[in-house]
Amino acid sequence: MTVTTRRRYDVDSLLAVAVAVFTERGYDGTSMEDLARASGLSKSSLYHHIDSKEQLLRLALERAVEPLFAVTREPGAVQGRAIDRLEHVVRREVEVLADRLPYVTLLLRVHGNTEAERWALEQRREFDRFVAGLVREAAGDGDVQDDLDPAVVTRLLFGMINSLVVWYRPDGPPSGARHTRMAPADLVGSVVRLAFDGLRR
Amino acid sequence: MTVTTRRRYDVDSLLAVAVAVFTERGYDGTSMEDLARASGLSKSSLYHHIDSKEQLLRLALERAVEPLFAVTREPGAVQGRAIDRLEHVVRREVEVLADRLPYVTLLLRVHGNTEAERWALEQRREFDRFVAGLVREAAGDGDVQDDLDPAVVTRLLFGMINSLVVWYRPDGPPSGARHTRMAPADLVGSVVRLAFDGLRR
Repeated sequence: MTVTTRRRYDVDSLLAVAVAVFTERGYDGTSMEDLARASGLSKSSLYHHIDSKEQLLRLALERAVEPLFAVTREPGAVQGRAIDRLEHVVRREVEVLADRLPYVTLLLRVHGNTEAERWALEQRREFDRFVAGLVREAAGDGDVQDDLDPAVVTRLLFGMINSLVVWYRPDGPPSGARHTRMAPADLVGSVVRLAFDGLRR
Repeated sequence: MTVTTRRRYDVDSLLAVAVAVFTERGYDGTSMEDLARASGLSKSSLYHHIDSKEQLLRLALERAVEPLFAVTREPGAVQGRAIDRLEHVVRREVEVLADRLPYVTLLLRVHGNTEAERWALEQRREFDRFVAGLVREAAGDGDVQDDLDPAVVTRLLFGMINSLVVWYRPDGPPSGARHTRMAPADLVGSVVRLAFDGLRR
């Protein structure tokens, strides 16, 4: 293999490979050998790019966590009525999920066995608390239907949104009954409409 | 140990133990020894009650599948406008989940490695198709909001409802941030209201 044909790896492409292997085999079940094989790199080349398997996990999890937290700092998330901020956050959360699907899938499956996983779980809880706070505030404003408990609404919203990682794929050919494919913009519209206005006409 | 103090096992209590062990360790990771230990029975007593580990799995899965399919045959599921039949099925599905939580949890986690698991996956798909059919029919009647794709609505409904096995517990003391506890009737009301009318007042 010559220098020109040798695959050049940057951290981005390495992360894309790692996140696929972690999700398929589980983080605990993945060895540096597995990552080397999947990326077509030798173990020593791999260590040229990263210090450890856990560093790779942390970087992969950051790809999901950072854009989610960026959403919570957007003007639409911090200005205006709580119900409108909540809608903004749900809309943008679905956009982030569609854009970062493999990374969010990994984030939703971590167990907490390592420092990186415990960090990710704490970030998830903090994001959940942010959304729960918006739901409670909107309920306090009288903008949520009376008979809906804010804690339950928050859980059901996350249940609905997080299920995307199982059944939604943004593009590519139809893949049978397993996945529903649709443009992210259409998906976002459907989730927001169902969550805020319900399915009944 | 005398005959009177020896624990008497019927299939019901054995199933309750088995479903907990299967869910915790995974079906593949559970041995007859594990089941004997968890149930406090000898392996030979265990074989007195059941023929095989897979038979126990099948019986446990039936505890979730049978009441779900019973719902699809109820008058409320087969008579009237599709949107009302859909509401009936969602309401009753949530009731079954709350009532059979450990069994439905197992049902949602099977992989399809054995005959019993493949049977369960096919039952899940058939139930999903039944609900998807109701959503499409309700959309055809003009009773679903125009901009909602029936396939996506079906996925989001299941995402919302199936998330219950993760965060909902019907009774007992509060268990921190992990679970939300509430009477089944209140849960059912919240799910139906959110799904059909949305959270916005």
